[in-house]
Amino acid sequence: MTGTTPYRTYLSEQQIPTAWYNLRADMPEKPEPMRLPNGAVATHTDLTPVFADALIDQELDDDTAYFEIPEPVREMYKVYRPSPLCRAYNLERALGTPAHIYYKFEGNNTSGSHKLNSALAQAYYAAAQGLTNITTETGAGQWGTALAEAAAHYGLDLDVFMVKCSYEQKPFRRNIMETFGATVTPSPSTTTEAGRKILAAHPDSSGSLGTAISEAVERALHVPENRGRYQLGSVLNQVVLHQSVIGLESYEALRVIGEYPDIVIGCAGGGSNLGGLIAPFMRDKLCGERPDTRFIAVEPASCPSLTRGRYAYDFADTGQTCPLCKMYTLGNGFIPSSDHAGGLRYHGMSPIVSKLKHDGYLEAVAVRQTDVFEAGEKFAKLETILPAPESSHAILAAIREAEKCRETGEAKTILFGLTGTGYFDMVAYDKYNRGEMSDHVPSDEELEAGFATIPSIPGVQ
Amino acid sequence: MTGTTPYRTYLSEQQIPTAWYNLRADMPEKPEPMRLPNGAVATHTDLTPVFADALIDQELDDDTAYFEIPEPVREMYKVYRPSPLCRAYNLERALGTPAHIYYKFEGNNTSGSHKLNSALAQAYYAAAQGLTNITTETGAGQWGTALAEAAAHYGLDLDVFMVKCSYEQKPFRRNIMETFGATVTPSPSTTTEAGRKILAAHPDSSGSLGTAISEAVERALHVPENRGRYQLGSVLNQVVLHQSVIGLESYEALRVIGEYPDIVIGCAGGGSNLGGLIAPFMRDKLCGERPDTRFIAVEPASCPSLTRGRYAYDFADTGQTCPLCKMYTLGNGFIPSSDHAGGLRYHGMSPIVSKLKHDGYLEAVAVRQTDVFEAGEKFAKLETILPAPESSHAILAAIREAEKCRETGEAKTILFGLTGTGYFDMVAYDKYNRGEMSDHVPSDEELEAGFATIPSIPGVQ
Repeated sequence: MTGTTPYRTYLSEQQIPTAWYNLRADMPEKPEPMRLPNGAVATHTDLTPVFADALIDQELDDDTAYFEIPEPVREMYKVYRPSPLCRAYNLERALGTPAHIYYKFEGNNTSGSHKLNSALAQAYYAAAQGLTNITTETGAGQWGTALAEAAAHYGLDLDVFMVKCSYEQKPFRRNIMETFGATVTPSPSTTTEAGRKILAAHPDSSGSLGTAISEAVERALHVPENRGRYQLGSVLNQVVLHQSVIGLESYEALRVIGEYPDIVIGCAGGGSNLGGLIAPFMRDKLCGERPDTRFIAVEPASCPSLTRGRYAYDFADTGQTCPLCKMYTLGNGFIPSSDHAGGLRYHGMSPIVSKLKHDGYLEAVAVRQTDVFEAGEKFAKLETILPAPESSHAILAAIREAEKCRETGEAKTILFGLTGTGYFDMVAYDKYNRGEMSDHVPSDEELEAGFATIPSIPGVQ
Repeated sequence: MTGTTPYRTYLSEQQIPTAWYNLRADMPEKPEPMRLPNGAVATHTDLTPVFADALIDQELDDDTAYFEIPEPVREMYKVYRPSPLCRAYNLERALGTPAHIYYKFEGNNTSGSHKLNSALAQAYYAAAQGLTNITTETGAGQWGTALAEAAAHYGLDLDVFMVKCSYEQKPFRRNIMETFGATVTPSPSTTTEAGRKILAAHPDSSGSLGTAISEAVERALHVPENRGRYQLGSVLNQVVLHQSVIGLESYEALRVIGEYPDIVIGCAGGGSNLGGLIAPFMRDKLCGERPDTRFIAVEPASCPSLTRGRYAYDFADTGQTCPLCKMYTLGNGFIPSSDHAGGLRYHGMSPIVSKLKHDGYLEAVAVRQTDVFEAGEKFAKLETILPAPESSHAILAAIREAEKCRETGEAKTILFGLTGTGYFDMVAYDKYNRGEMSDHVPSDEELEAGFATIPSIPGVQ
């Protein structure tokens, strides 16, 4: 009943990449550099108090094409990688499409998502540097869970600041982080200056990713003897670098199968999964070997940075304590509708992904939440994997492209990233099943209010 | 840093078994047959109203060694099988043991457990027979989730009766079944005669597996035109047969690696995972090829059917509406402590597993809940998989055997079944983490009260 391609292609342990691929090295124009509020380009020295040294090297290096994966990280990759490249035969049959639909499934580890790929790297480098404490923030909770696993493995203390409304609505996410040994604090909290300031002004604040970042950074800076650092799960160049393991494995597995994607699709919140998935295929496009490959970033209509945002320098956090990145942004003060479920709520976007979009190498589409859940449930029933709502954005776009193939009769090869599972998103699924899910799309006025929070930097832009 | 054995061994799609293995065919003494309350051996005709025809054939056949897996079931197995055989290197290192620890991981599918292996088979046979409706009960929810997936795939309507306290305590389990299209009713309900009877006597009843079974069977029998059937997730011979896919894949993967287990360990609730995992290895023992292999069933001290139960004919359900099985039982009226988390709460045990235990081929140990959670958390931090509490019973026993090897210096090969993930058990993990989990072990008086509910059948036992 099936073709010669198996449902699941597993590479061998030996085929796990030995190096991460740095797409910036092959970009004809590099992403704009990170800057300080005064307009100066951020240096290694500027970032040293916040990030582990090896990670800063990776963050600032636009030229080195490959960074060797440290052996202890690669050892841990072997516990859950290579992840399977899956042929969605059941979905293809149900759609009646001649397209070949593949997805790289990153949900087959306890963290439930691709986030573990970077968490292991970041925790390892912190431990190798002799640091003792790491801090982070989490919203939907996938990143916090992954970093909790990584911190447990490398023997680091982890403080997670969890956006208060998520902390209250997703107790199981908190529990799983605690099970792995992390300390989870609802943000805003009274344990940091940044938190106390917010609480003084807004005693009932339910928190935001921006505030949680500010708290986590402050906590890292106050660890005695300079042995604490802050870690971030997306947006940064280093994270896109680590996530290239997704793309490299996909590339190799498709080579084994004898396919090459015509279209590569990923959901986009901060852009790390998308940037990692597309990396080797984008390289082929940039160097002219595969000029016709299409790349599609899929974002929620409720938080449409790539499709309706501005390409500008903006703060990475709402608290405006972090450096600025040149990226598609809705403004650091933009707050997506609380109706929106799951992740993909970030105001900005990876500078690498932003640059590729700006230069015309990558398309972006914004999709509505109810359509996303409809696609996710269809996929679950056919492929028996319950996708995370984030991943379902990519599923929806893949279905639409496959339906176009049905119309045109073209047997295109479509690859999308299935970033994770939806076990912790049952409240949202239930809301959808009851017909109570809404589709907020920000008005132009709402967007303008967000844009007003984009700073202007003297002598830049 | 590792040996030549990879962390994960994946067989190819072609190596998925083409037939289930029926261990009964190689047992020197067969399990006792299912009987009706009047003592007569249950016939195909007796079971026809309740089970799909092909499943009755499998249930009653003690002689056929192999049943071909229907191609549509094998197609669906390809979506998530072969499951990985994993080497627990991190655990071995942490224990400092010379033992080689392997686990067969069945949690890598959305249902989160091995239950899907039988759910797909049972739903397929119902659909192939032209039936339209299936019914079942669920407690912890793994079986209900798996059958919901299977029913969605084969286009069957599914009614799940979910033990009321689980329905209320585990809303996400209910949500995931509903997402796959099942109808979930808290039991006892007013929708069946059996439910109404219980509610009349006990208006505040929080339900039991036994009552839920009675409701599900009644519902199946009332589907118009005889097109409904009841399906069960464990205990039955047919389920052990379907779960042999776990053992067959483990056997083949170990052969590829060049290992053979000295000890095979599985958790035991109804016995289907254990029976399936051990099947081909037990065959080797029974036929004298591998006489020294040890088999260990691990059960909760709070529900100790194999270690403290009686080997006797007993009803499969508390409502005493089902046929009787000869098995280790605590009595159909035994109700395990509500302190006990997760599954493994069944009063009886698979007749196949029971017979093997009775005849001395299989050992059984009962373990305490807090020890189980301690082992589960240790495993999670080392192997990055958060185990289901049921699976953690096997983990604990494997750790204890590996620690013995550390003392003796023997490099034994240990295989255990990691039946599923603990995503839906965070309430229990949280309770453990807070030090609020207790260890109820039934007193002799409590056991006697259960034994008093074991029926005596005229002319039998």
